[in-house]
Amino acid sequence: MKVQLGAVPFVYPVPIALGGATVAGKPNYLTLGDVGIMGINPPLVYISSGTNHYTNQGILEHGTYSINFPTRELLAKVDYCGMVSGHDVDKSVLFETFYGELGTAPMIRECPVNLECRVVKEFSIQHRQVFVGEVVQAYVDAAFVTEEDGHVRFAELTELAPILYALDNRYYTLGPVIGRGYHEGKSLLEQNNKQE
Amino acid sequence: MKVQLGAVPFVYPVPIALGGATVAGKPNYLTLGDVGIMGINPPLVYISSGTNHYTNQGILEHGTYSINFPTRELLAKVDYCGMVSGHDVDKSVLFETFYGELGTAPMIRECPVNLECRVVKEFSIQHRQVFVGEVVQAYVDAAFVTEEDGHVRFAELTELAPILYALDNRYYTLGPVIGRGYHEGKSLLEQNNKQE
Repeated sequence: MKVQLGAVPFVYPVPIALGGATVAGKPNYLTLGDVGIMGINPPLVYISSGTNHYTNQGILEHGTYSINFPTRELLAKVDYCGMVSGHDVDKSVLFETFYGELGTAPMIRECPVNLECRVVKEFSIQHRQVFVGEVVQAYVDAAFVTEEDGHVRFAELTELAPILYALDNRYYTLGPVIGRGYHEGKSLLEQNNKQE
Repeated sequence: MKVQLGAVPFVYPVPIALGGATVAGKPNYLTLGDVGIMGINPPLVYISSGTNHYTNQGILEHGTYSINFPTRELLAKVDYCGMVSGHDVDKSVLFETFYGELGTAPMIRECPVNLECRVVKEFSIQHRQVFVGEVVQAYVDAAFVTEEDGHVRFAELTELAPILYALDNRYYTLGPVIGRGYHEGKSLLEQNNKQE
């Protein structure tokens, strides 16, 4: 039996990230649960941010932003960045900032993965501004990659200790691997092929 | 030190969902990693789907779709739904379908949470169609909620055994709770307030 929960956008769990932008000449960071993939090739992502958010001004001015994925060690700072606005507090002091090729998308060195993005589409909907970005470069801490035969190989993602969130207002960590893409469904695919 | 990974949309991990739509008069389901929240109030979500996907036709025709969150027990079917197209295979036989108030957004009974969505914005970008939806109703299996003082309370999300995914082509499950929103950052907030 199904129970109606009402009109809630209960997508769960969502990855928690810190969005970065240059606002009034300085880096600013905001906590984001409204972030995701829109395309793989070309590489498109989005962030959605309340229209009155301080960060939006900087994204609109420069047409660039970053998405930074924290580890659970950064949880207090991540939560704090969602509690205070860059209007009132200088959040650039919380992290060490670095820049990539765009020059105006500040990124957080302490975050193991950083996406440097150029805005390719922007729109407002209800009380939100949505910034669709093309990833121009992804950065990862050297500690989490090894090179094998000229290919960069990632650590297990659980080692990156990403932070997840849901509308139950809880933060979660990532659990273990339970399968491989385009593999777990193979037996069903073979059954289907036999029936044809 | 940071290593450049190239232009990859490395948002990790992403929740895996099954999108549902009525195509040619029948329910069809596709596997989605490109799903997320765009707003809380009003409740906005999005899905991004390759322009040639079978499901898109149905979403455009009816202006409705669903997002269904599977448990790990459904992993083989979830993976399979990402391997075959509704152009070739009738995927409606894999699940028990139910409908809500919109009537044209088929939902999967075996998934503990279902979001019934009305399209409020649609756009194409690169090889993708993006459907921004307003959630008109969210459904949850009665087994995962209890009522207390007239309020619906959710089970721990780990009991819903959501499936996560990342560009390493691995499926993951959800790990344990590591904190509470608007709580973990309180000590930093108090420090900041003292300094002012």
